[in-house]
Amino acid sequence: MSGFEGWRAVPSHVSYEPLTPTALLDRAAEVHAERLAVVDGDLRLTYRELHDRCLRQAGLLRGLGVEPGDRVAVLGANSPLLLESHFGVLYAGAVLVTLNIRLAAAELRHILEHSGATVLLHDPEFAELAEEIGGGLRVVGPAEHERLRAEAEPHRVEADERGLMALNYTSGTTGHPKGVMYHHRGAYLQSLAMVAHFRLTPETVYLWTLPMFHCNGWAFPWAVTAAGGVHVCLRRVDPAQVWRLIDAEGVTMFCGAPTVLISLLEVAPPARGRRVAVAVGGAPPSPSLLAGCERAGLDITHLYGLTETFGPAAICDWRPEWNTLPVAEQAVLRARQGVSNLVSCTIRVLKDGTDVPRDGATLGEVALRGNTVMLGYYRDDEATRLAVPDGWFRTGDLGVLHPDGYLELRDRAKDVIVSGGENISSIEVESALAAHPAVLEAAVVAMPDEHWGERPIAYVTLREGHTVSPEELRAHVRARLAAFKAPDRYEFGPLPKTSSGKIRKNELRARR
Amino acid sequence: MSGFEGWRAVPSHVSYEPLTPTALLDRAAEVHAERLAVVDGDLRLTYRELHDRCLRQAGLLRGLGVEPGDRVAVLGANSPLLLESHFGVLYAGAVLVTLNIRLAAAELRHILEHSGATVLLHDPEFAELAEEIGGGLRVVGPAEHERLRAEAEPHRVEADERGLMALNYTSGTTGHPKGVMYHHRGAYLQSLAMVAHFRLTPETVYLWTLPMFHCNGWAFPWAVTAAGGVHVCLRRVDPAQVWRLIDAEGVTMFCGAPTVLISLLEVAPPARGRRVAVAVGGAPPSPSLLAGCERAGLDITHLYGLTETFGPAAICDWRPEWNTLPVAEQAVLRARQGVSNLVSCTIRVLKDGTDVPRDGATLGEVALRGNTVMLGYYRDDEATRLAVPDGWFRTGDLGVLHPDGYLELRDRAKDVIVSGGENISSIEVESALAAHPAVLEAAVVAMPDEHWGERPIAYVTLREGHTVSPEELRAHVRARLAAFKAPDRYEFGPLPKTSSGKIRKNELRARR
Repeated sequence: MSGFEGWRAVPSHVSYEPLTPTALLDRAAEVHAERLAVVDGDLRLTYRELHDRCLRQAGLLRGLGVEPGDRVAVLGANSPLLLESHFGVLYAGAVLVTLNIRLAAAELRHILEHSGATVLLHDPEFAELAEEIGGGLRVVGPAEHERLRAEAEPHRVEADERGLMALNYTSGTTGHPKGVMYHHRGAYLQSLAMVAHFRLTPETVYLWTLPMFHCNGWAFPWAVTAAGGVHVCLRRVDPAQVWRLIDAEGVTMFCGAPTVLISLLEVAPPARGRRVAVAVGGAPPSPSLLAGCERAGLDITHLYGLTETFGPAAICDWRPEWNTLPVAEQAVLRARQGVSNLVSCTIRVLKDGTDVPRDGATLGEVALRGNTVMLGYYRDDEATRLAVPDGWFRTGDLGVLHPDGYLELRDRAKDVIVSGGENISSIEVESALAAHPAVLEAAVVAMPDEHWGERPIAYVTLREGHTVSPEELRAHVRARLAAFKAPDRYEFGPLPKTSSGKIRKNELRARR
Repeated sequence: MSGFEGWRAVPSHVSYEPLTPTALLDRAAEVHAERLAVVDGDLRLTYRELHDRCLRQAGLLRGLGVEPGDRVAVLGANSPLLLESHFGVLYAGAVLVTLNIRLAAAELRHILEHSGATVLLHDPEFAELAEEIGGGLRVVGPAEHERLRAEAEPHRVEADERGLMALNYTSGTTGHPKGVMYHHRGAYLQSLAMVAHFRLTPETVYLWTLPMFHCNGWAFPWAVTAAGGVHVCLRRVDPAQVWRLIDAEGVTMFCGAPTVLISLLEVAPPARGRRVAVAVGGAPPSPSLLAGCERAGLDITHLYGLTETFGPAAICDWRPEWNTLPVAEQAVLRARQGVSNLVSCTIRVLKDGTDVPRDGATLGEVALRGNTVMLGYYRDDEATRLAVPDGWFRTGDLGVLHPDGYLELRDRAKDVIVSGGENISSIEVESALAAHPAVLEAAVVAMPDEHWGERPIAYVTLREGHTVSPEELRAHVRARLAAFKAPDRYEFGPLPKTSSGKIRKNELRARR
């Protein structure tokens, strides 16, 4: 507090409460006590019930000897258990370690060891896996969890708003997963930003298509709760089931990577009189995907962020004056990564340490800082120092700033293809390929080349029932981009992906 | 930060920025640079221009010798000067003291002396008053302000988020005005709450009917800016002008006390195809006012708060399931003070130190704490101690909690009329009177009575062209409430009001 004379504040607790996401559930339980909070098949929980279960989960954890600061791992799909752990573990003052259910046992064991988790909670479908990886941990299965929770007293520990609250192990398109450290204050503010940007209200019905174990579900476990909306659980993204739930539960919003939308659009959506909001992140939506979503009644907002930034740091905030532009121009604007979200996280694009001009052309690395940036990598000071060399977190993403201040990514630093001294943006080539009617998805990576240093190679998934020759694709790209950017080789088949739907380019590079 | 082993955060500045409302303008200037920010007659400012003017105002203040922590007073209507000072004074690290333009010179001089302000900025229409009250201060008139600002360099001082940021002198329905101390963090969070609750977006066009000098305009100078909306300035609430601006500027929202709405509805609104959101505070809207607003295309949300809570602490958050109730029931629900707003401010109703049951009947005093509570009263430790005896700020308002958790005020502690040992809620009697077709507004206060201790007396303003006898009003009230609650005396005429439209009951009591 400033020290100038003449005033003295009252005891700080009257004007200070720690910013923590659990405060959002506390309020929801006050305001929306008897309203629906969670749907999971036949299970329906009100906010009063959700609040009670979370406080008792904290009591359960204390009963197991969990102390503030201890790590608690959860192996679950988008289930009530995983949702409740986003509050219960925090009420206990412990650190939530969400496990990616698609990882191999050895990878999960590494994360459990690295995080030092002492307790492992799991959903019924992962009982076998939990036993396999849970050696040395207190493993609590669903039946025991329910019994212990029922016996436990409600419990809560006051949060330190800048203290460690969760570890999110990066899904790892490269190297060893790192434990990204989240703090209460960042999660709280990110939640408010999501409420504001997506106008979440008590009428919001949110479908859990995005894995909750990925960046804590972009803060939506807390944001939907803040608004008093309904969480609709979903264990697995099955397109027909998604459309059915949208209809049956009156879903108003969901999130996902473009690949999730691509798979949804492969199934004809049922007739429906209303539109659904969709936040898309992980990769920019292509014009053809946007057009398909428009026809399917999905309103797309493009987000950009990283695990290190609590998920969405930037939002392609739509401006009313763009509504009158031609559809093709709108698609270009909508695929940009956008501007920093409402809470104070500052985005810069740096080249040789200085900000690039807003010319839509000069490439620089995206750097961030603010209240929604991680504390660092857990037990990895070296990686932290590399990522935050000077107080600004380096994303490894390369982009340009347009004259209107909107960020557009051109590539991951490591995904740029350098051919004969010229940079080729893999994203640019992928967008050109995606515009071909036969192409469902494409990934372009560098292939070593004796003459040029590197040359692009394209991995392409075709739409069902379509065929196309490499020559035709090559001509298609050359009609749109400089000739040297067109890949020399085309391989057809499914693309390897991370759990959050990102294409594993490192795996494609390893194939060369 | 928690001290447990195993992790070390990166330098705090990568994951920490002070929460201050100026961050919201910084973002708006990035995101909405060329979009319209301010309309004042013929003057139109973009966010880039607004940002520049505010940073240069900070430079101007530094040039005048203003140091961080110094108090800067502003005497202005809802003008660009006053709006810009809500950022410029903060950029300078100084403390904003907004002056109520309706106070007498002696009252203003008291506030200037008490606050220790060293600089006084003013709008052109207050030149004479500024000279009269500005003795010993550096008085900067509009022409000089414009010249100095143009010459000044942009300037900013890093904010201390829990430090003093503004003084709001209570408009004083009783006693001497007290200087309520606002902090950056509270103003920032309150702004985000207003954005979320009122779904402010870049399409918001906000009309400044609420005095900006009152609780810093309920945080709307910052909230509208956060959303990238348009501020439409308004020097004086003239009903015809308000309707004209709503039409001409495409206004989507404004705020005000019920009296503002009453005066608006006295003028026939022009035909208009869209509805306008209105936040109403200061007193609950009566059923007849709500019906009139509904017909006039105004969607009412009722707020409750005090100067000490950055304005709105509670919001009568509308539940979708209430839409199907009969209109009369909706009006009763809409007049309740509601639930705590989205940011963490906790509301309790206390009787003899414990929480009242949620029975809609047991009366207690409303108490609050959280991030949107004041630091205390400036240079008045005694008053602060009385208001915050135990870490909870006592509002002096008496209310009940309904079974659904919604707060309903029954009276100010000092406005309760105790007649023959029975409590009479002045609000209850006023609502009954307001339901009479001839009554525009009513205020009920206690009158000393030899037999009963106190008896209610009613001050009533009739609608133009209407007449009614005291006997008829008495019968009207008795038909609705217990006989002992009906006032014995009725006096007709205009009601004395504060600048924010609250009825000055202390003045009415002094008339007895």
